[in-house]
Amino acid sequence: MKLTILGCYSATPRTFTNPTAQALEVKGHLFLIDCGEGTQVQLRRYKVKFSRINHIFISHLHGDHFFGLPGLISTFRLLGREKPLHVYGPKGIKEAITLFLKLGDSWTNYPLIFHELDSKDSELIFEDDTITVKTIPLKHRIYTNGFLFEEKPAPRKLNIDAVEKWKIDRSQYNAIKNGADGIQEDGTIIPNIDLTQDPPKTKSYAFCSDTKYNEDIVPLIQDVDTLYHESTFLESEAHLCEKTKHSTAKQAAQIAKMGNVEKLILGHFSTRYPSIELFKVEAQTVFPNSELADDGKSFEL
Amino acid sequence: MKLTILGCYSATPRTFTNPTAQALEVKGHLFLIDCGEGTQVQLRRYKVKFSRINHIFISHLHGDHFFGLPGLISTFRLLGREKPLHVYGPKGIKEAITLFLKLGDSWTNYPLIFHELDSKDSELIFEDDTITVKTIPLKHRIYTNGFLFEEKPAPRKLNIDAVEKWKIDRSQYNAIKNGADGIQEDGTIIPNIDLTQDPPKTKSYAFCSDTKYNEDIVPLIQDVDTLYHESTFLESEAHLCEKTKHSTAKQAAQIAKMGNVEKLILGHFSTRYPSIELFKVEAQTVFPNSELADDGKSFEL
Repeated sequence: MKLTILGCYSATPRTFTNPTAQALEVKGHLFLIDCGEGTQVQLRRYKVKFSRINHIFISHLHGDHFFGLPGLISTFRLLGREKPLHVYGPKGIKEAITLFLKLGDSWTNYPLIFHELDSKDSELIFEDDTITVKTIPLKHRIYTNGFLFEEKPAPRKLNIDAVEKWKIDRSQYNAIKNGADGIQEDGTIIPNIDLTQDPPKTKSYAFCSDTKYNEDIVPLIQDVDTLYHESTFLESEAHLCEKTKHSTAKQAAQIAKMGNVEKLILGHFSTRYPSIELFKVEAQTVFPNSELADDGKSFEL
Repeated sequence: MKLTILGCYSATPRTFTNPTAQALEVKGHLFLIDCGEGTQVQLRRYKVKFSRINHIFISHLHGDHFFGLPGLISTFRLLGREKPLHVYGPKGIKEAITLFLKLGDSWTNYPLIFHELDSKDSELIFEDDTITVKTIPLKHRIYTNGFLFEEKPAPRKLNIDAVEKWKIDRSQYNAIKNGADGIQEDGTIIPNIDLTQDPPKTKSYAFCSDTKYNEDIVPLIQDVDTLYHESTFLESEAHLCEKTKHSTAKQAAQIAKMGNVEKLILGHFSTRYPSIELFKVEAQTVFPNSELADDGKSFEL
């Protein structure tokens, strides 16, 4: 998995700070998560091959997570896209985008497929042979979802040394990879576990923005490799969290700790602070493996 | 009048080329003309004090002239704006913006006043003591207007040397400035024209984008000081103009020449060409006083 932060600042786009958008490469997919104004320019700036994007996940319909979407959809049309584009987002997103395209008499010449979300429970919204995507219901001022991206386990790997040692016929190799025991010529059964190796560990990424501090998400993000959790404020501004339904860096770290995640990435920074390093310092008092998102930064997960 | 080009390239925003937006300072107003995606960042980049914008004129509802508007309106709210904001644009613009604000539950806390346009004839859409703004109906793929900004003439200036020479009493000065003749003590009438000087010449600016070549606009832009006319293509791609309803640099120059304007500014360049200088070279074969717009460039008109 490779995560590229296209924008990770809250509220309004500025000359050097961009609103939320992320590109996640996993198992041959290039997923776009949120699409604040200017995302298509950020995709170009950081040389993300955005014609490869087939699935866009929008957490909520505040401008700093969504206002870049009409432009990106239009640009795909101008670039001659033919492949379907799937957009997952809150109910209403279809009407909004459709109205903008209608007013410009600029219908896409590729299939544009909306998957509107309105469940308050976590649900599976995408699945193929290699990966699943589930929603993580968040608590913000409007209906909001985070997203959990999980690789599926690969089949167990054949242990060539073992099958040769136990003289298992080649005709059984595929069955063994899929879990079958081995059978020797004389009928002796060799348990699958002695003939195979564990597949590579699966990876998982949870994106949680925007949200107030909400322990309800802990079971959903339990043991993920990487958690992106918003930290709009520092504890010194914790009093702003209740009204705005945002979190502090410390609160993000508490969720990471409770979820026993491997790594926390902080983002959605308010621009009121002199340095984003302050977010990291605060989070690390609770959860040492905390890192900072920043526009253009990539993480190999 | 001071014109700042915030973006002057066609189609999609790119790392170093921005879609259409212009800031026009005139008589204490700061007008915004068109608002492609990223306009609010361009306003910051070029240090245009955008809290001073009270009137936004949108030519048409294609993304490269309009998709920055929801973000700018939202940012005004986040910055605590209280003053009314007037938006002039094609019918439908109110529904589109209103839907985006509704979905984000982000109503403005300042009055947002839409002036929807649907006339096919030129009409006066703004007027105060010092300036008028009229529409210039254009021919594009969808309903589109250019805009003509005209200063009103100031009162004639009192010629101090003349009134003293003709011994006109001070009590008459204001009346003379407003056009009255002077009356000497013995009743002799001195014509106004001998007592006053012409006021400074008024300035005018016509913005015409997007449009195919259209001689119908010539009477509307006759004798303006500065004409901005789109030139998406060069003559070598003139065959694309009919389908896309755009103009070449040469066509823009022909309109400027027929309109007897003082200066032509070219813009809305396709990014297919290696250098925008080519547009200037082509236009100057027809209209020598042709200049190029470019992102961030300012013109004192």
